[in-house]
Amino acid sequence: MKFTVGQIAQVVGGTVEGDENATVSSLAKIEEADAGALAFLANAKYEHFLYTTRATAVIVSPELVLRQPVAAALIRAPEPYLAFSKLLEFYQQATRTARRGVEQPAHLGESSTIGAGHYRGAFSYIGEGCVLGENVLIFPHAFIGDRVRIGDNTIIHAGAKIYADTVIGQRCVVKAGAVVGTDGFGFAPQADGSYKAIPQIGNVVLEDDVSIGANATIDCATMGSTIVRRGAKIDNLVQLAHNVEVGSHTVIASQTGIAGSAKIGDFCVIAGQVGMAGHVSLANKTTVTAQSGIGKTVRQEGTFLQGSTAFDFKQNQRAQVVFRRLPELESRVIALEKSLPAPEKL
Amino acid sequence: MKFTVGQIAQVVGGTVEGDENATVSSLAKIEEADAGALAFLANAKYEHFLYTTRATAVIVSPELVLRQPVAAALIRAPEPYLAFSKLLEFYQQATRTARRGVEQPAHLGESSTIGAGHYRGAFSYIGEGCVLGENVLIFPHAFIGDRVRIGDNTIIHAGAKIYADTVIGQRCVVKAGAVVGTDGFGFAPQADGSYKAIPQIGNVVLEDDVSIGANATIDCATMGSTIVRRGAKIDNLVQLAHNVEVGSHTVIASQTGIAGSAKIGDFCVIAGQVGMAGHVSLANKTTVTAQSGIGKTVRQEGTFLQGSTAFDFKQNQRAQVVFRRLPELESRVIALEKSLPAPEKL
Amino acid sequence: MKFTVGQIAQVVGGTVEGDENATVSSLAKIEEADAGALAFLANAKYEHFLYTTRATAVIVSPELVLRQPVAAALIRAPEPYLAFSKLLEFYQQATRTARRGVEQPAHLGESSTIGAGHYRGAFSYIGEGCVLGENVLIFPHAFIGDRVRIGDNTIIHAGAKIYADTVIGQRCVVKAGAVVGTDGFGFAPQADGSYKAIPQIGNVVLEDDVSIGANATIDCATMGSTIVRRGAKIDNLVQLAHNVEVGSHTVIASQTGIAGSAKIGDFCVIAGQVGMAGHVSLANKTTVTAQSGIGKTVRQEGTFLQGSTAFDFKQNQRAQVVFRRLPELESRVIALEKSLPAPEKL
Repeated sequence: MKFTVGQIAQVVGGTVEGDENATVSSLAKIEEADAGALAFLANAKYEHFLYTTRATAVIVSPELVLRQPVAAALIRAPEPYLAFSKLLEFYQQATRTARRGVEQPAHLGESSTIGAGHYRGAFSYIGEGCVLGENVLIFPHAFIGDRVRIGDNTIIHAGAKIYADTVIGQRCVVKAGAVVGTDGFGFAPQADGSYKAIPQIGNVVLEDDVSIGANATIDCATMGSTIVRRGAKIDNLVQLAHNVEVGSHTVIASQTGIAGSAKIGDFCVIAGQVGMAGHVSLANKTTVTAQSGIGKTVRQEGTFLQGSTAFDFKQNQRAQVVFRRLPELESRVIALEKSLPAPEKL
Repeated sequence: MKFTVGQIAQVVGGTVEGDENATVSSLAKIEEADAGALAFLANAKYEHFLYTTRATAVIVSPELVLRQPVAAALIRAPEPYLAFSKLLEFYQQATRTARRGVEQPAHLGESSTIGAGHYRGAFSYIGEGCVLGENVLIFPHAFIGDRVRIGDNTIIHAGAKIYADTVIGQRCVVKAGAVVGTDGFGFAPQADGSYKAIPQIGNVVLEDDVSIGANATIDCATMGSTIVRRGAKIDNLVQLAHNVEVGSHTVIASQTGIAGSAKIGDFCVIAGQVGMAGHVSLANKTTVTAQSGIGKTVRQEGTFLQGSTAFDFKQNQRAQVVFRRLPELESRVIALEKSLPAPEKL
Repeated sequence: MKFTVGQIAQVVGGTVEGDENATVSSLAKIEEADAGALAFLANAKYEHFLYTTRATAVIVSPELVLRQPVAAALIRAPEPYLAFSKLLEFYQQATRTARRGVEQPAHLGESSTIGAGHYRGAFSYIGEGCVLGENVLIFPHAFIGDRVRIGDNTIIHAGAKIYADTVIGQRCVVKAGAVVGTDGFGFAPQADGSYKAIPQIGNVVLEDDVSIGANATIDCATMGSTIVRRGAKIDNLVQLAHNVEVGSHTVIASQTGIAGSAKIGDFCVIAGQVGMAGHVSLANKTTVTAQSGIGKTVRQEGTFLQGSTAFDFKQNQRAQVVFRRLPELESRVIALEKSLPAPEKL
């Protein structure tokens, strides 16, 4: 795939400064680009890269005023990042093999149905009583249990496992190796100290536009549903326990674990390696920094938390500053004690 | 599946107050139940839900004295939770498809044997020299290496991988995507700073009634065995390194990691995201709170630990309270210093 | 497999003290060995085990002077651990089934090639346009996407998933369930607070002699490459996000997570459950203790870090000591305050 700078300018509705017949064949970051690459400059902070980049062409804003000569051809277009982003999508569609049809052997339960335009990879398994929509892509080694429902245009990646009775919306992506709907960690302690598994008869519901990361695990509900609401994005290796609810357009980064029956509001941002105790809730628009541990319910929208256990971000930042000099603080207290007669002797 | 309230009462040995001909078709929590659902009330704390629930019927204790009118039919039975729990098991058995026989294609090494009543899902793989008991269920995409032994009534879920020489007891459950018996993280540093893999010739032993969570990883021993003892329950995404031993009826929650050669006693409770250093031990009945880091051996039974690194739970709780007001504490020390001549000037 | 002590002595170039006709059939640690086992003693710290071991034979140094009688036969050889290590390798090769050829059904894209001496397990999947070297082992349920390149003598274990365009060097090991090259967690926030996936068009590069742990996840780059350099060893359940770079001969222990575009130098040692923020870098030979959180760039080679958030190891150790007695420190400040008139009243 090769395009001239002039052709790219036409696609993004821009104008060319420099050699419009130069050709580009890849997309790259401005600071990493080699000859033959197209890059973009959207943030003034990175303008200095424009004067040293090896990129053949760079998309820049119409307003940008050059302070030095530039070797690359410039394509001036409004919103350079958006323009570049469209090219990224185009590139991805052009280079990723479109997958349609069935590769044999693949298992499809007799009582299951799947819509037009689908792909079922070799060694994929679909149980009984499933209803899968149109343009659904089921990659090799994916496992779909009984009575699963999957909406149109959803992608189940290689080796993902979707257990019985799971309901998945439209345009969802379940990445490789994710496990959705397996029995939760529910055990009733017995008189002798041993444990007996509590039957888990609930399911998992992923609403539309949800993304589940590679090797993430989402347990089914004990009763009712574990729910990930519309547009939420869950990263790799995240654990969502039984009966958890994740709100719409909430983002949860890698390796975070949410214990049973916890509820997270809409538009929250939960960083990586966060832990959240069972049965607590977070209000909408809560932000939690990495490695924090959430032990109790947050009712105030827009709260910003840090620490294990977590409290107000700024307060935590200040406490951490003093933590580093605790030995010195202790020495100062000792010095004060020495400078006085002991209190009890006063 | 529909049952009348009268039929349910007969099954659980209870008596009906209200409409014994009303029908129920699902099980639910009392606070989430809709019409057609059967719920239970075991804990007096939740009694208020009894007066507002939409459940068609609720199992309650014979001793419960009503304070308000109740719309639902009541089934009075001793130990309402136990009664409900039996119904849960019955429901699960009735709704989960019983799996028996072999779905083709499935791979079974010629020198391997498997007992009566088993299920081998499509695309399951069993190597050579394996001995599998009766009623063993091997789900699709499960991988069983060479010379693995598995006891009666054990379930290996979709895509779980059991490496060579692993020994698994009776009534165990290995959930989807778990990896048991892969080579541990053992590397010998070389003179040039590079690393060389140390051969790992040991195995993994899971005793009877062990549960291993989805996408958990358990490494084989360098020599000897990595052991999970009878009745221990290991949650999703847990890591057990080479030569770890987990005691009987110990519970380890999600995302906890136990480093090489660490030993955990019986009846311990390890919460989520805990880390435990190599070669240290925990006495029986140790409890560790979430996100703690265990750096040294605990010899006292019944110890309760918190923190990274962990120490006594109550002491840690008190230290955390002061941690939050460290900036204020520092200010008070500064005020004290100002209120006195500097010690060295005294 | 049985060998006489005399045969073992010949193999390792040692001399026998005791019964050279005694036979051994297993390898074990000196403190765990039973009759029939061969053990070794390399570290003087463990010499006491020599006098109580049940091992049939022990490899010891030529210089070792016995302080008590020893029941086991001794094989005196220079560098006992190295000698034992060679036997370990020999044992592993002798007991692990050599795998060559193809088990059907296995999927190989028509346009892909694979070198001599390879193994492709049943239900393994290789897409289109792949180039795989000699003696490559692809275990059952492994998924190899399109245009993947894999060097000679590399092993892809059961159920590992290698996504399109990944480049893997020679002598690498990708353990069971690992996911390499899936789309990173990149989402552009929209005006309404929802998120849109940013196309991820980069890839993953694993250089020679890299090891990737079971169920670890490595995301492809947004553009360019996520890179794990020669000889680096990555443990189970580790997360490497898009555009991360891990330096040569760096070791990363289990459950650590590295956020997008972070760079780790050569010869670093990162312990388990560490978190590292996006876009920060670590100098060569940095050491980070377990559960630490790295929030900013480290430029000094050989830095030793601890804590969340992390700072100098020794300083952190000292601060933690005072943290434990914070309640007492606060009491001492209160006592000082009481011993004086309040500062504002002075």
